[in-house]
Amino acid sequence: MPLIRSVFQDELDSVSESLVNLTTTVSTAMSQATDAILNADLKVAEEVIANDQKIDEFQHDIDSRIIDIIARQQPVATDLRALVSALRMSADIERMGDFAHHVAKIARMRHPQGAVPAELVATIKSMGSAAVRITEKIGVVIATRDVEMALEIEGDDDEMDALHRDLIAALVDKPWNHGIEVAINLTLLGRYYERYSDHAVSVSRRVYYLVKGEYA
Amino acid sequence: MPLIRSVFQDELDSVSESLVNLTTTVSTAMSQATDAILNADLKVAEEVIANDQKIDEFQHDIDSRIIDIIARQQPVATDLRALVSALRMSADIERMGDFAHHVAKIARMRHPQGAVPAELVATIKSMGSAAVRITEKIGVVIATRDVEMALEIEGDDDEMDALHRDLIAALVDKPWNHGIEVAINLTLLGRYYERYSDHAVSVSRRVYYLVKGEYA
Repeated sequence: MPLIRSVFQDELDSVSESLVNLTTTVSTAMSQATDAILNADLKVAEEVIANDQKIDEFQHDIDSRIIDIIARQQPVATDLRALVSALRMSADIERMGDFAHHVAKIARMRHPQGAVPAELVATIKSMGSAAVRITEKIGVVIATRDVEMALEIEGDDDEMDALHRDLIAALVDKPWNHGIEVAINLTLLGRYYERYSDHAVSVSRRVYYLVKGEYA
Repeated sequence: MPLIRSVFQDELDSVSESLVNLTTTVSTAMSQATDAILNADLKVAEEVIANDQKIDEFQHDIDSRIIDIIARQQPVATDLRALVSALRMSADIERMGDFAHHVAKIARMRHPQGAVPAELVATIKSMGSAAVRITEKIGVVIATRDVEMALEIEGDDDEMDALHRDLIAALVDKPWNHGIEVAINLTLLGRYYERYSDHAVSVSRRVYYLVKGEYA
């Protein structure tokens, strides 16, 4: 059934393409959210918050298409696993969008004050850059099924974890002079970036598994 | 095809039963994790941490069975949606188990000191009780598709959110005398219970949607 198979493959490719587009949207959201938190920029924060709904709808649309493909094409084995995996990836990427949204909400809540004391600006900036870099990579991994890059993302996640540890160390290793509220917000910010990165790793592992049939 | 239909229904029921068993395991984990955090009980904390792997394997097993049913029965429409929904519920419930694990890890990290100052014991205790109550209810909702109870869980989640606000207020409204590390741990604890509850709400909404064909 070369024709049927080809229609199915086209549909699968179209789902992957949408997942890549979703990563781009989420990457922009996290980049903007980081700008908002570093610059106490209310306008950008509001933009990220308003766009979260669109990310949710985008995911909902992708999921409906995946379920529709399963219902019409009745795939089995590898093809079914690829579609179930796509469902899980869309959930991971949407969740990454939620974390961008959470970061932006802290920026909005703290406004007009900032959320990040001067000595931690570099750390949060690095976490934001790492988040964007990781998201761009999972876009490439989904599009090309590049397993080498999928493995690279594990290293990027280690870097994010190290930045997260630096952040917590800055809170506890010296006397803290910025008050409890700032400490609470930084604790949450650290967790948001770290979890964002975990979901990216989850996506890259799913692609790795689809390609290799086993986990790295 | 009454025979085929009935085999399919049996398989679907068996998946629901496993999801209910998973909620029971997770509920026990969260109950123990709360005991561990309130009593600085290292032994119980270690037990919860060790059992998390079992919860992950349990979920993995349920998911494999769901995918196998989709492949063999090739369901469409409502039946396919019920199975995709079961996949998402298993992910939600497994994630709830992760939060029990996270709570236990804070108990272990703080040991032999406690993580919860005396004035916040009642709040954390209430969050733990609310978590267990909510988990028991989602077990019933999955087993019986009781949409009234599904709606009740929204109210339980509101209660959890109120407890979370109380916890944060206790941190910021008065001078804080327990140090930054305790504040960080309480911030994370509060978030773990709150997120745990959110995932329970997500499960109850999925059941509601399956029964009613629309969101509440």
